[in-house]
Amino acid sequence: MKKVAIVMGSASDKPVAMDAVNTLAQYGVQAIVRVLSAHRTPQEARDFTLSLEGEGVGAVIALAGMAAHLAGAVAANTVLPVIGVPVASGGLGGLDALLSTVQMPSGIPVATVAVGGAKNAAILAVQVLAVSDEKLRQKLLDQRAAMRAAVLKADQDINEALKAQEA
Amino acid sequence: MKKVAIVMGSASDKPVAMDAVNTLAQYGVQAIVRVLSAHRTPQEARDFTLSLEGEGVGAVIALAGMAAHLAGAVAANTVLPVIGVPVASGGLGGLDALLSTVQMPSGIPVATVAVGGAKNAAILAVQVLAVSDEKLRQKLLDQRAAMRAAVLKADQDINEALKAQEA
Amino acid sequence: MKKVAIVMGSASDKPVAMDAVNTLAQYGVQAIVRVLSAHRTPQEARDFTLSLEGEGVGAVIALAGMAAHLAGAVAANTVLPVIGVPVASGGLGGLDALLSTVQMPSGIPVATVAVGGAKNAAILAVQVLAVSDEKLRQKLLDQRAAMRAAVLKADQDINEALKAQEA
Amino acid sequence: MKKVAIVMGSASDKPVAMDAVNTLAQYGVQAIVRVLSAHRTPQEARDFTLSLEGEGVGAVIALAGMAAHLAGAVAANTVLPVIGVPVASGGLGGLDALLSTVQMPSGIPVATVAVGGAKNAAILAVQVLAVSDEKLRQKLLDQRAAMRAAVLKADQDINEALKAQEA
Amino acid sequence: MKKVAIVMGSASDKPVAMDAVNTLAQYGVQAIVRVLSAHRTPQEARDFTLSLEGEGVGAVIALAGMAAHLAGAVAANTVLPVIGVPVASGGLGGLDALLSTVQMPSGIPVATVAVGGAKNAAILAVQVLAVSDEKLRQKLLDQRAAMRAAVLKADQDINEALKAQEA
Amino acid sequence: MKKVAIVMGSASDKPVAMDAVNTLAQYGVQAIVRVLSAHRTPQEARDFTLSLEGEGVGAVIALAGMAAHLAGAVAANTVLPVIGVPVASGGLGGLDALLSTVQMPSGIPVATVAVGGAKNAAILAVQVLAVSDEKLRQKLLDQRAAMRAAVLKADQDINEALKAQEA
Amino acid sequence: MKKVAIVMGSASDKPVAMDAVNTLAQYGVQAIVRVLSAHRTPQEARDFTLSLEGEGVGAVIALAGMAAHLAGAVAANTVLPVIGVPVASGGLGGLDALLSTVQMPSGIPVATVAVGGAKNAAILAVQVLAVSDEKLRQKLLDQRAAMRAAVLKADQDINEALKAQEA
Amino acid sequence: MKKVAIVMGSASDKPVAMDAVNTLAQYGVQAIVRVLSAHRTPQEARDFTLSLEGEGVGAVIALAGMAAHLAGAVAANTVLPVIGVPVASGGLGGLDALLSTVQMPSGIPVATVAVGGAKNAAILAVQVLAVSDEKLRQKLLDQRAAMRAAVLKADQDINEALKAQEA
Repeated sequence: MKKVAIVMGSASDKPVAMDAVNTLAQYGVQAIVRVLSAHRTPQEARDFTLSLEGEGVGAVIALAGMAAHLAGAVAANTVLPVIGVPVASGGLGGLDALLSTVQMPSGIPVATVAVGGAKNAAILAVQVLAVSDEKLRQKLLDQRAAMRAAVLKADQDINEALKAQEA
Repeated sequence: MKKVAIVMGSASDKPVAMDAVNTLAQYGVQAIVRVLSAHRTPQEARDFTLSLEGEGVGAVIALAGMAAHLAGAVAANTVLPVIGVPVASGGLGGLDALLSTVQMPSGIPVATVAVGGAKNAAILAVQVLAVSDEKLRQKLLDQRAAMRAAVLKADQDINEALKAQEA
Repeated sequence: MKKVAIVMGSASDKPVAMDAVNTLAQYGVQAIVRVLSAHRTPQEARDFTLSLEGEGVGAVIALAGMAAHLAGAVAANTVLPVIGVPVASGGLGGLDALLSTVQMPSGIPVATVAVGGAKNAAILAVQVLAVSDEKLRQKLLDQRAAMRAAVLKADQDINEALKAQEA
Repeated sequence: MKKVAIVMGSASDKPVAMDAVNTLAQYGVQAIVRVLSAHRTPQEARDFTLSLEGEGVGAVIALAGMAAHLAGAVAANTVLPVIGVPVASGGLGGLDALLSTVQMPSGIPVATVAVGGAKNAAILAVQVLAVSDEKLRQKLLDQRAAMRAAVLKADQDINEALKAQEA
Repeated sequence: MKKVAIVMGSASDKPVAMDAVNTLAQYGVQAIVRVLSAHRTPQEARDFTLSLEGEGVGAVIALAGMAAHLAGAVAANTVLPVIGVPVASGGLGGLDALLSTVQMPSGIPVATVAVGGAKNAAILAVQVLAVSDEKLRQKLLDQRAAMRAAVLKADQDINEALKAQEA
Repeated sequence: MKKVAIVMGSASDKPVAMDAVNTLAQYGVQAIVRVLSAHRTPQEARDFTLSLEGEGVGAVIALAGMAAHLAGAVAANTVLPVIGVPVASGGLGGLDALLSTVQMPSGIPVATVAVGGAKNAAILAVQVLAVSDEKLRQKLLDQRAAMRAAVLKADQDINEALKAQEA
Repeated sequence: MKKVAIVMGSASDKPVAMDAVNTLAQYGVQAIVRVLSAHRTPQEARDFTLSLEGEGVGAVIALAGMAAHLAGAVAANTVLPVIGVPVASGGLGGLDALLSTVQMPSGIPVATVAVGGAKNAAILAVQVLAVSDEKLRQKLLDQRAAMRAAVLKADQDINEALKAQEA
Repeated sequence: MKKVAIVMGSASDKPVAMDAVNTLAQYGVQAIVRVLSAHRTPQEARDFTLSLEGEGVGAVIALAGMAAHLAGAVAANTVLPVIGVPVASGGLGGLDALLSTVQMPSGIPVATVAVGGAKNAAILAVQVLAVSDEKLRQKLLDQRAAMRAAVLKADQDINEALKAQEA
């Protein structure tokens, strides 16, 4: 099975990145986790990107805040699908990171998820791998069923709580 | 080879959607093109989504404007990677469509590209298929080389134009 | 008398939703409260929506955050008035949920209230029912009178506090 | 059958307002159309609002641009459902009118639709009246069916156009 | 000497409004302070506005949050200068109140100050009165001198602190 | 009677500024019109500001676009009421000019009107002068009556047009 | 004298870039002009950046639109001052390019100018060079004097035009 | 060696300004630190600016919040490179200060860094001085190497922490 690379622009992104790490673990997908900055370690970021296919990586998740160039910098050096996670920091609430990640010019896409959406980035990476991996596809369907059950459970809980309150 | 489905929320999105149709054709990827609205034909949109895997589709591109729910509505009913293209319409410049597409809740990702970025959506879909298709991967590398050559050509052209101007 | 359905996209929306639940109770309007996600339980959300008229529901309130599709997804499957409450979460302060709720395409309106405005959503639902219910209309007028009195009381309190301060 | 009042803040809003006028006509709902400004004719706007119930009006549509206070000013003087249509004008693309219309304080809701969404405002007004009018409800269902057919027709047209292009 | 009226849309605006109250007191300008809502007490707000000139008021300060209509509602009923103070509340940081206050349509201006800028609203009101009141004008000049001195003192303090730190 | 100074940051602001010039003329208020830049002619802008009271000016209108500092720069050097008109230019629709004009720090207010609101700036200037000028106050009331009549005329026209259309 | 490098991300940025080219020519500063994309020619962009000091370049101007990473990508590979020009394209008016350019993480600054501000970028580059070049400094002062004269001329022209109109 | 001037608009900006002070100290660059307001001490701000070159200053850093005019006001009176640091305060997260600082009109550039980016402002100032100072250039390269090492260390730390967690 292909691996997924998770690269964050700064150690301060670790709490967000762990959502992706943990989600991939739930799917049994092996992760390569790196801290590499598009601006402070451009050469290492490039070398890492060029090594991805050789390492058996099938999709990359890049997390960064502010003028979040990391996902785009990775995408410039690979044709693997690159998933960008804008990380909120400072007063602009992540709008800066979102626009810097998603508004990529023609030719070099970044598959952008919600601000702080590292868990969804991991699921998307699994979906990419699952296109040619029936077992992963089944795990995704199982997770969907679990999510559905969780919502229905919450639905039941709230109604029981409301009834208890009325009584 | 897997196909790519392109679904637009309204016939008015056709000019943007054609960028995706034409790009897929350049890569020799077969496209299924549909006009289906999350709000005006919710049942057909759902039925279409549920039929995708049976039709040999490996990735879906969904284009919509305003409160762009289409990509999310498709993603709710498939574990295939869903790529969302926010379409600008009206005075907000596509910010409404962008936020409605990208800010998906935990569990159901949409791989969002730039406002109006249908060409990049097609390239991203090809990248997804190329994870397990060496020929497509090679075509992506060839396109990258062509893009690189086009930039270098533009670089040369501008410098020649500037020199001619000076002379 | 018709009932009002309140559906929230996630159990985390409960604190906001309770403003609607409690307000409806003040007007003696019976509420059906559900947790149903447009993305995690699309089929249940649809089935619920299709059941509304049979249950004697006259208006629906839908609360959701981020790419808030729930109100639109409900509106796609009913011609009852659907009232959308954007819920703030994350750094964008609810702007994402607001635009995702209000910018509905032509044909399928969502009656959107302020970010977090669940109390006003309930009042609006009561206003809808009151169009053909004189008793409810009278209760709305009574509440207006009570609100007016509260403002005038606050006006008096502040002036007394200021006078006490001066003295 | 109840009427619907349409009030615009300025004659310059007429092109947008006509979408509401024409849509109501399609549903056979009688409209009262007025130009009244919350700021230039506050007293007339108030007198008009107070007269609505006596005129047999069941819902009000208010259109205004910029610091769009009209819907709120109407809502302050009636317990009828008030539907606000933000009108775009100037460089802010209607964001000013949207926020001025939707962000109503607790107690006085305005049912806000999309920027420029006068057609949806009319449909919403019909939905309000249809809560107690089975004939209107049937017309809404018919319109939904017509909208659905139009989407499916567009779907067919595009596929035929694409096939013709290929051939 | 003319008085200044300070009207706030809700008792929750009192902490902001007190900046205006206290600033006027520093200039020896008499203030009339009221809690009156454009939406919950429209008639009282109007009656109050119509009474202003009879009470010897020369300028009005109106504070409100969200869809802040209060300043505009006051301005609609008087030709006195009306100063609007947008009050931040909720996730939009006061942008809603700012646009609702400042984007007034042609004919009815509101003199808008910064979000939360009640102190500046009071100074502006004093400046308006000072156009025909030499004593007030002198007080404004004195306050300017005091502000200047405070900045120069802060300048000195920081340089002394930096020097102490170096030593 | 006091005069009003109108200062614009660039000759390109002239079309907007003429709305203020013409409005003042309608009220019979004498205007001093200047092109002076806070950044390109800071000393002239300061000298001009310091001369205002000597010239019998009672209020200043400053128009500027982009990082619109002009109104603030004028306000820093006078205690006369300074009215700021943000001028839209470029892609941000005047949001830059609006925030640069209105978000003044504590101590130095700028009375800000809508983006492009030069006509309202002139009316506000007249309102300031009218606080101590009964004749101007009467003219403002007359203009209000004329505006009211214009709205009522538009109301009548639209209703006649609609009736003609029906017939 | 040091040169200035001007690099644009796409040939479509040429009209904006020419403002910088022409301005540098006015100051007699030699320019190196390149089209190089951070995403389509990352290696060439890097090689070019690494060559800058050897070519006698003292400052770099980078222009790009959308998720404008170019200035940051250049800044990552040089300690020369890098000046970023956000270029507007699409519906967001350049806000995406502005935030992507200016919100650089700690350690790697980009000196950002206004959206489309290529002329100012050139002047800023000249100011950088002028820190150690008295002749350039004098030219900057001369240009300031010329700008000042142009404003004063516009001031005179408008006053003459207004007088002619009155007469 | 040239000095760098750091000027803040208010003593409340000191915590942000200290990032610049401390960073300059790391590079051994002498700083002149001032609190001077464009609006409360315009004359002192101007006098200070005019004195800069005589004091041997090579670059200026100006920090301000809200309608941040300080950098522009300094830039209007010197041809030295002026670096603007927008400071966040209030609910708009620094967007007001950013636009007020960066959107300078043609002719008078301000080199703007990220909201709160005082450290980067200092580095940029050092980069400006380093254009003609080989020792400073070497220190910048050393700092780059240190930043690179810190990222690689964080990369190693996270991988060790993840391995320890697994074991």
